[in-house]
Amino acid sequence: MAPRKQQEIFDATLWMVAEKGYDGLTVEGVAERSGVNKTTIYRWWPSKAALLGAALVESDVLAFEPPDTGSFRSDLVALVEQVERLLTEPPGSDIAVAALAAAVRHPELDARRFFADRFARERVVFERAVRRGELSGSADPLLIMDLLAGAVWMRTVLRGMPLPDGFAKKAVSALLDTF
Amino acid sequence: MAPRKQQEIFDATLWMVAEKGYDGLTVEGVAERSGVNKTTIYRWWPSKAALLGAALVESDVLAFEPPDTGSFRSDLVALVEQVERLLTEPPGSDIAVAALAAAVRHPELDARRFFADRFARERVVFERAVRRGELSGSADPLLIMDLLAGAVWMRTVLRGMPLPDGFAKKAVSALLDTF
Repeated sequence: MAPRKQQEIFDATLWMVAEKGYDGLTVEGVAERSGVNKTTIYRWWPSKAALLGAALVESDVLAFEPPDTGSFRSDLVALVEQVERLLTEPPGSDIAVAALAAAVRHPELDARRFFADRFARERVVFERAVRRGELSGSADPLLIMDLLAGAVWMRTVLRGMPLPDGFAKKAVSALLDTF
Repeated sequence: MAPRKQQEIFDATLWMVAEKGYDGLTVEGVAERSGVNKTTIYRWWPSKAALLGAALVESDVLAFEPPDTGSFRSDLVALVEQVERLLTEPPGSDIAVAALAAAVRHPELDARRFFADRFARERVVFERAVRRGELSGSADPLLIMDLLAGAVWMRTVLRGMPLPDGFAKKAVSALLDTF
């Protein structure tokens, strides 16, 4: 399938799940919205769970490039700011939150792929920091991302609170500096 | 209403949301399960959102006592372990995850109350640490809890990964010790 056509299908999928929730997402609806035949979509993605899983990882809407600012601290701040944008700026926020709620209730929708894919790209920030001598080789990048990204999920999605100015910097400082 | 009766209603509410999700939760079902008249339930909680909101905060099933181990570090480890139990041990985990998914899609179900209530109780750990001189008075307890509790949500619910042994200790150490 042409990459552009594929992106149109992913767009339609993500918008539909953001608007109607996972229960309201249908391959028929995606077909109509993207102008692609339903059977074509099924040929590539055998279920709506597979379609949404692919869209979460491969859509340009949720595209993610790891920062390379020159220092570990400011790379981490940039990573946290990316999670902030994902969770607070539409359409990303509607999509992320709807897809999360769906993934929690429907394990067949493999949201782990989304997080695993993001973490695979975030790793480079830690590898560079170790090479530059800013981070011990024994540090645990997954744990550090759990703490930092988790803080943004916690504050925005779970607590339903606004993010104060400088949240990313303060979160990174809580981790890197002593109290 | 007698406290014991109220707990039976909350139990029925939490079990029903864990089993059937928020969409499957009905005041009729809770009435049947708890043996309380439907109109009585409505007199106390005007909607199923109000009922679930009250159950999340007031049920003994999700009861929470802040730890008091004598040191800030081990209090924090105990707090993280409580979140771990909440998110990994049934029935708490089924309830927490189902209620979260519901809260995200139904803002009228005020999940903030649950998190606000927990944080109000967690605060004492930080106040004691400041009094003992283990923590600066300018530290931000909400941010620290966002980082620590968020890490558990991230690893278990969002990434869908098991918690390794010693996760709580490592998370606290990442925060309190330098890398």
